[in-house]
Amino acid sequence: MVVAEISVTPLGTGEAGVSKYVARCVQVVQASGLDYQLTPMGTVIEGDLSRILEVIGKMHEAPFSMGAPRVSTLVKIDDRRDREDHSMLEKVRSVERKLDK
Amino acid sequence: MVVAEISVTPLGTGEAGVSKYVARCVQVVQASGLDYQLTPMGTVIEGDLSRILEVIGKMHEAPFSMGAPRVSTLVKIDDRRDREDHSMLEKVRSVERKLDK
Amino acid sequence: MVVAEISVTPLGTGEAGVSKYVARCVQVVQASGLDYQLTPMGTVIEGDLSRILEVIGKMHEAPFSMGAPRVSTLVKIDDRRDREDHSMLEKVRSVERKLDK
Amino acid sequence: MVVAEISVTPLGTGEAGVSKYVARCVQVVQASGLDYQLTPMGTVIEGDLSRILEVIGKMHEAPFSMGAPRVSTLVKIDDRRDREDHSMLEKVRSVERKLDK
Repeated sequence: MVVAEISVTPLGTGEAGVSKYVARCVQVVQASGLDYQLTPMGTVIEGDLSRILEVIGKMHEAPFSMGAPRVSTLVKIDDRRDREDHSMLEKVRSVERKLDK
Repeated sequence: MVVAEISVTPLGTGEAGVSKYVARCVQVVQASGLDYQLTPMGTVIEGDLSRILEVIGKMHEAPFSMGAPRVSTLVKIDDRRDREDHSMLEKVRSVERKLDK
Repeated sequence: MVVAEISVTPLGTGEAGVSKYVARCVQVVQASGLDYQLTPMGTVIEGDLSRILEVIGKMHEAPFSMGAPRVSTLVKIDDRRDREDHSMLEKVRSVERKLDK
Repeated sequence: MVVAEISVTPLGTGEAGVSKYVARCVQVVQASGLDYQLTPMGTVIEGDLSRILEVIGKMHEAPFSMGAPRVSTLVKIDDRRDREDHSMLEKVRSVERKLDK
């Protein structure tokens, strides 16, 4: 299981706000069926690597389909193969357990 | 109000897990008094720019104090000055409102 | 033409140095035939989006094939479709022309 | 010695091009006296951590002083304390030595 955060930013739209573009990107994730979490700075998804790369490509295209002339996409992929329980939920819980001690 | 995501990664520790280092970084944020949100891929904080830069410096130091020989820190700063209500909460809500339509 | 920067970091290797892993990732790029530039903080490549996503997947796999238990990959994609001359070289030159004035 | 890459992006300017803003950010780095390298995807600088954080703050302010309503700044800090020769130049050379073998 790979956990990845994606942040898609349209440039040259003339608007400082980008939430309508981000909403379209979230709809792409929803259509993919992958589990996801919307955060203040991006969208976190989990799944196997090839599906995640496919979804990244589609998210990146979304603002162009809405008229943006330029898109900047930031992706961070966290892929851990020494454990079976690597997931969005377990990553947060693992930190919280250390904080509770 | 600036919203920023910080992800601090120790290298050369010999462990694939990093949650104990992340927990120490979160404690640095807690000590700062800034509002924050822990996500699967980083810690999101909000506040004014100078305090955020100060906290980033302290978070980056935390793994060294625990023995890490090398630290990689990723920061994304989102600073919007045309609106008063820029915040972690409003950023997510703004996208959710578009999704609900 | 898409310009992208990729930075692949193995975790849990017990070594603070990562250059042998980065070298393997660069060999993946060389084998792809895409133009690239090695910088102190990553590898910049240019080409069409689908080929770039394919190369990112292969670069991300490289440290696992060398024994790393966990890999963190950071990607920034810059895709500009309002101009024909978007490239690694033109991006730098465009800034340099402004600096020379 | 810390090596860091900074990429400053203005949003809501109505222009897809950002090179004039990037040029201003590079002038901030030049004024700081820190060594730097301009790449197609960002500006790489080296120096001690506190000076780098100070320069990041000033680079981030530059597009606002030119009228941008929103600025997104991405920073990656690579700080290695087990070796004396950590630098922009040595990082690239270390990879090139492995490629030459």
